[in-house]
Amino acid sequence: MNVITLSHGSGGETTHKLIKDIFYKHFENDILLQQNDSSILQKLDGKIAVTTDSFVIKPIFFPGGDIGKLSICGTINDLAVSGAKPMYITVGFIIEEGLDINILEKIVSSMAKTAKQANVKIIAGDTKVVEKGSVDRIFINTTGIGFVKDEELYLCANNIKKGDKIIISGTLGDHGMCIMSQRKGLDFDVDIKSDCNVLNRLVDDLLNISKEVKMMRDPTRGGLATTLNEIIEGSHKSIVLNEEDLPVKEEVMSMCEMLGLDPLYVANEGKVVVIVSREDAYKVLEAMKRNPLGKDSAIIGEVIDDNKNKVYLKTEIGGTRILNMYTEDLLPRIC
Amino acid sequence: MNVITLSHGSGGETTHKLIKDIFYKHFENDILLQQNDSSILQKLDGKIAVTTDSFVIKPIFFPGGDIGKLSICGTINDLAVSGAKPMYITVGFIIEEGLDINILEKIVSSMAKTAKQANVKIIAGDTKVVEKGSVDRIFINTTGIGFVKDEELYLCANNIKKGDKIIISGTLGDHGMCIMSQRKGLDFDVDIKSDCNVLNRLVDDLLNISKEVKMMRDPTRGGLATTLNEIIEGSHKSIVLNEEDLPVKEEVMSMCEMLGLDPLYVANEGKVVVIVSREDAYKVLEAMKRNPLGKDSAIIGEVIDDNKNKVYLKTEIGGTRILNMYTEDLLPRIC
Repeated sequence: MNVITLSHGSGGETTHKLIKDIFYKHFENDILLQQNDSSILQKLDGKIAVTTDSFVIKPIFFPGGDIGKLSICGTINDLAVSGAKPMYITVGFIIEEGLDINILEKIVSSMAKTAKQANVKIIAGDTKVVEKGSVDRIFINTTGIGFVKDEELYLCANNIKKGDKIIISGTLGDHGMCIMSQRKGLDFDVDIKSDCNVLNRLVDDLLNISKEVKMMRDPTRGGLATTLNEIIEGSHKSIVLNEEDLPVKEEVMSMCEMLGLDPLYVANEGKVVVIVSREDAYKVLEAMKRNPLGKDSAIIGEVIDDNKNKVYLKTEIGGTRILNMYTEDLLPRIC
Repeated sequence: MNVITLSHGSGGETTHKLIKDIFYKHFENDILLQQNDSSILQKLDGKIAVTTDSFVIKPIFFPGGDIGKLSICGTINDLAVSGAKPMYITVGFIIEEGLDINILEKIVSSMAKTAKQANVKIIAGDTKVVEKGSVDRIFINTTGIGFVKDEELYLCANNIKKGDKIIISGTLGDHGMCIMSQRKGLDFDVDIKSDCNVLNRLVDDLLNISKEVKMMRDPTRGGLATTLNEIIEGSHKSIVLNEEDLPVKEEVMSMCEMLGLDPLYVANEGKVVVIVSREDAYKVLEAMKRNPLGKDSAIIGEVIDDNKNKVYLKTEIGGTRILNMYTEDLLPRIC
């Protein structure tokens, strides 16, 4: 078996061979191949958006994706929900000595495929190798740069008004419950696939149809409830969600029930939550449903004007409860 | 003792508290405080340069610096040697459960101080916490964005000509030997300080005085010999270094001799190697010497036209040997 050794991270000849044989082979593009300490990009005629994320997910392969695909999706989605067109990504690998090189190549090839799908270039990289036991297999950092197309588009919680509708692009909790079922092993023989996906085209579809989008976010760590709390914090508005409208897959719900979890707090990796004016809500919903990644989109709630910065859930039995920000650690290394 | 727990990485309330109490406190600036999934930057009227690096150094505190200072210097220097003005940095932390929060704050404060010194803003961040044993204390990724000021400045190995001079900005091997002496503990009771420093002002000084700079690099992992091999690879030129002109501190040299190492292959973290036309070499040297970070600058060799892409060393006893690219792993986790 061909494995990663400390010399692959030394900066010398073995590092250069790894870069050529694996990284350049899969990530090849004109900018990366400048092979300098920095990559030089062409002039971008507008504002730019920047985001960074590290990925430490366990296991590194799971139904619906792997750490490589996830690392590209996560960063592309953070740019897309900010209203930016994702353009460039840098990647930083921290690898444990002894990792099978075939596993690394599988991850790298998955990153390349996902980036291509989203029309994004991988423009710079770095590889560090640490001794066995100093990192758990492989961690990846991705930093994304996007181009703000529409200078008029200013997504901001301050734009949110009473009556605005909340739309989610599909079922809740698939990613988190997929990872949890993998970790629990055979005890949970359920077939839950992660929703890990790139959302930039779905976001394009909805922005093309409405100028009344106030805010978008991808509800990852902490789930939808935490994300909505972050959005509404300091807005002097509140959000009411209707439990009966929340899309949740049956197998995800039953696993959540068994474990005593709430799908509203479980991570998603291919969903966007949109806040849009009441007037445009239905046309945005229809546009989202036409995209395969948004086929289960639903209007799940609305903004009210109670000056309390809260997220409420109207339950199916007619009660109302407050959904606070997530305080405990549900599941480490979900992304 | 206040320590980092898994819930600091959950994305919920504890994460938000950590971000506010530690990261916003030290890194505060208008862009970071947008608090969105992506940070939006003002229009940059020119090309941009991008670089990424992960830092896994052990120990995390050492004479002359710490992992935080190093993570900012490394990325700023990669931008500066590419001829870009460093502007923005993103930071990604991967932290081991149980790390003392005071240690994290010391590292963060050191990053903030170094960024301020270089006039660079920290504009986006991410924090992941993993279980004890899944990472060795703390790893940091920094990605840097710089602005290419001078559209005419095109640093490229193709510009290198016969007779060009090689200048190094100071003594070789200080960082690597500092880290090695720390790891060896009391056996090596020597007083070697890392040269870890930001080089953007030194680079400005030399670019302001000459339009004849062909190439710059910071010789980190693999040392000066590996860096010069990278530069000369594919140029159809070669480089001859004069051993008697190489600046090396006495204590670094004697530690190298004891360990059977060559300071030409030992990492530096605050040095720049410059290739400049013969005509401008002395004025560039003088400009560099006027900057405290370049006071030990020296002309150490020149470019010859033998079509072999080699780096040669003319030894003090009159011989010549080839300095190949570094092939073994001298010292893991040097940066």
